[in-house]
Amino acid sequence: MTERLVVVGGDAAGMSAASQARRRRGPDVLEIVVLERGSDTSYSACGIPYWIGEVVDAREDLVVRTPQQFRDVHHIQARTRHEVVAVDTDAGRVRVRDLGSGREYDEPYDQLLLAMGAVPLRPDLPGLDGPGVFGVQTLDDGQAILDHLDAKDVRHAVVVGAGYIGLEMAEAMVVRGYTVDLIERTERPMRTIDADLGCQVADAMQGMGIRLHLETEVVAVEHHGDRGMRVTTSAGELPADVVILGLGSRPNTELARAAGIPVGDESGGVVVDVRQRARVEGVWAAGDCAEVHHRVTRAPTTIALGTIANKTGRVAGINLGGDYATFPGVLGTAVTKICGVEIGRTGLGETDAHAAGYDPVCATVETTTKAGYWPDTASMQVKVIAERRSGRLLGAQIVGEEGSCKRIDTFAAALWNEMTVEELLNVDLSYAPPFSAVWDPVLIGARKAWDAVLADETR
Amino acid sequence: MTERLVVVGGDAAGMSAASQARRRRGPDVLEIVVLERGSDTSYSACGIPYWIGEVVDAREDLVVRTPQQFRDVHHIQARTRHEVVAVDTDAGRVRVRDLGSGREYDEPYDQLLLAMGAVPLRPDLPGLDGPGVFGVQTLDDGQAILDHLDAKDVRHAVVVGAGYIGLEMAEAMVVRGYTVDLIERTERPMRTIDADLGCQVADAMQGMGIRLHLETEVVAVEHHGDRGMRVTTSAGELPADVVILGLGSRPNTELARAAGIPVGDESGGVVVDVRQRARVEGVWAAGDCAEVHHRVTRAPTTIALGTIANKTGRVAGINLGGDYATFPGVLGTAVTKICGVEIGRTGLGETDAHAAGYDPVCATVETTTKAGYWPDTASMQVKVIAERRSGRLLGAQIVGEEGSCKRIDTFAAALWNEMTVEELLNVDLSYAPPFSAVWDPVLIGARKAWDAVLADETR
Repeated sequence: MTERLVVVGGDAAGMSAASQARRRRGPDVLEIVVLERGSDTSYSACGIPYWIGEVVDAREDLVVRTPQQFRDVHHIQARTRHEVVAVDTDAGRVRVRDLGSGREYDEPYDQLLLAMGAVPLRPDLPGLDGPGVFGVQTLDDGQAILDHLDAKDVRHAVVVGAGYIGLEMAEAMVVRGYTVDLIERTERPMRTIDADLGCQVADAMQGMGIRLHLETEVVAVEHHGDRGMRVTTSAGELPADVVILGLGSRPNTELARAAGIPVGDESGGVVVDVRQRARVEGVWAAGDCAEVHHRVTRAPTTIALGTIANKTGRVAGINLGGDYATFPGVLGTAVTKICGVEIGRTGLGETDAHAAGYDPVCATVETTTKAGYWPDTASMQVKVIAERRSGRLLGAQIVGEEGSCKRIDTFAAALWNEMTVEELLNVDLSYAPPFSAVWDPVLIGARKAWDAVLADETR
Repeated sequence: MTERLVVVGGDAAGMSAASQARRRRGPDVLEIVVLERGSDTSYSACGIPYWIGEVVDAREDLVVRTPQQFRDVHHIQARTRHEVVAVDTDAGRVRVRDLGSGREYDEPYDQLLLAMGAVPLRPDLPGLDGPGVFGVQTLDDGQAILDHLDAKDVRHAVVVGAGYIGLEMAEAMVVRGYTVDLIERTERPMRTIDADLGCQVADAMQGMGIRLHLETEVVAVEHHGDRGMRVTTSAGELPADVVILGLGSRPNTELARAAGIPVGDESGGVVVDVRQRARVEGVWAAGDCAEVHHRVTRAPTTIALGTIANKTGRVAGINLGGDYATFPGVLGTAVTKICGVEIGRTGLGETDAHAAGYDPVCATVETTTKAGYWPDTASMQVKVIAERRSGRLLGAQIVGEEGSCKRIDTFAAALWNEMTVEELLNVDLSYAPPFSAVWDPVLIGARKAWDAVLADETR
């Protein structure tokens, strides 16, 4: 008899899982139905700011595989604009709304994968749901922004929130020639890195003409039709022809909660085991909506990143296909480029480490991306966070010019293996003058952190 | 009473050791004398091809610290143009020749560090020791080459040997506008990477106009004064105004052998323990002349690279300064850029793995340095070598365009920790569209290698 796998959500996690399951079980033994609320499957949400910033040409460029490709090549039914509105785990079925026709129907399953992703945060403030105010999550969002920018005489952009998406969108707005005001509730942008390194990001943004309004809150947005909008903040008013929200997101778990599928109190994600099984028989979860184990804090968390969605989706799909795989957890590795500044992080920053209960010892080094004498060598800062006494690596952060930040991956591999900074400083990394100094920045950072651990001991 | 440390050789290993010892013991308790045959201390030999290729402006750029800086700042007596001609370990002294005056004298020591480096291979062929034929090891060699190129009407360069130095020098000669013939004894250039990836290097070189003469041996060099030279090879004759030798090197251990200090039969390097102590009381060794433990083959070897010289020198110096450090071994990581092609390697290639007794399973992937849709994304190939059955990573090789090959460091960190490719494929590496696809090339390589290991099992 043919089994039925129903996947809720057709982006990275859902489609990775569907593809892996299909590789292991043909359509004759496993029917796969993916229900996706939006218009696209398997798209690069991370690419949207670059599409709007005209680095990437076309919407199609951001789609890895279309529903038709899934259907024709992989025999996976991916129904877009179909929203799952309820899950009945006792009956083994989901209630689906076809957003085109408004029709609702039941879809039975043997196995159910929850891959609903995350929902962007959108505070309940006057005018924030009006026209001209946009979130940045789906390709439809991106298209709506572009349509708005093309239709209106846009000169002033207001971006709310200075995390990855907010910063990338602020830069995209500058590239398009608008004045940009960036409003951030806290005292600095890019709070995923420590303050000492983060100041470079603020400098670079201001250097590109972005006006930063820190410790400022949005109060309301007034809409004046063709005359644009007026954004009222805790520190005054700003004109706006477009408002972009980059306030972060939370796991999309309403459906799971309503169905009685356990969701972590602290993490806010669907609780899963090492194979991505939820706590209810026949239900699985992967991607932004699922908990992941953080290998350094050792606590469950959620992180809305495509890298993790792809990996957890793959693991779920291998298991759903009858094979065996486990997901070993995350480090919180991330990288971005803002106004010419590259930023990388893995593991815990100094603040994070304290919050997790560690006693960290830190070292920050100024170094270069290539040999010091190389013509276009660029500057970079590396901060290494180690545990007091043991010298165990807890995290690393990199801020610098072109060619700096992908080195964060070497720290990530070291952190994964719970290396001490003393051991890391001896690792046989590569060197040639066009690529680094003879002591790679990773090694220099580890050396200085080890010096700091020793100095702390004899304090 | 003041102790005396004598260091033979004033480049990376010797000066790293001297500096580390000095940091721990002041001049009142430890006198440090460095005896260097050449004219410079602490210089970047790796930079010489770029100096000759006019990427780097001046000889001074390649000197990290001068003898005077060592003397004035670190209270280290670095005597250049002083050659140690004999070691008497019973008496605890070395015999030194001042190459300027020809005078010889004895220098007593309490501790002796051997850091003589490597000697370039120079076959005993007619004419190979004549004018216009150059090795590339010291800054004096570099200066001699430049003086020759400036003085003569140079049009034809012949480079012998297609390893790192030979290839880099061939490119430098093209950049200077000469015709370049590269002669290589074996069937391909860059034999430190497997043949399947190496072919790209040959293509790139030929694309730049370098004429490759493979499976060809130099027989003799005839000197015709101002009319240049004629290089006779096993496949014909070539005109040459300059001949560059890039035939590799061997550990410089004559001094040690003559003094009865044990040298490894297979490795050819001075035998040392984990703290860099030679097998004779009071004698230490570091850098190109010393054995290192290869963490993958598990055999002693020698590798002439600045990275390893700096690290082993540092470890020796910490111990000589009365502290404690051990050197954990090498992976054979290396990187270079030849005619626009980046090349990286770590651990064992497919051929190396067989030679070491492993049964390897390999996978090669074609991927991109940035998101596939990014405007200037570049192509790269990754080859991953894993152990059959266990899936343990044994090595990796990368060949590609700009932005490819520093990723070898992530493989190196994984290899250092004896990870399996299955575990590696889940490591939380960074992603953003300007830096990689959502599955970084390292992860894609690991995935494909794991697929290959599984496929091999069910074969």
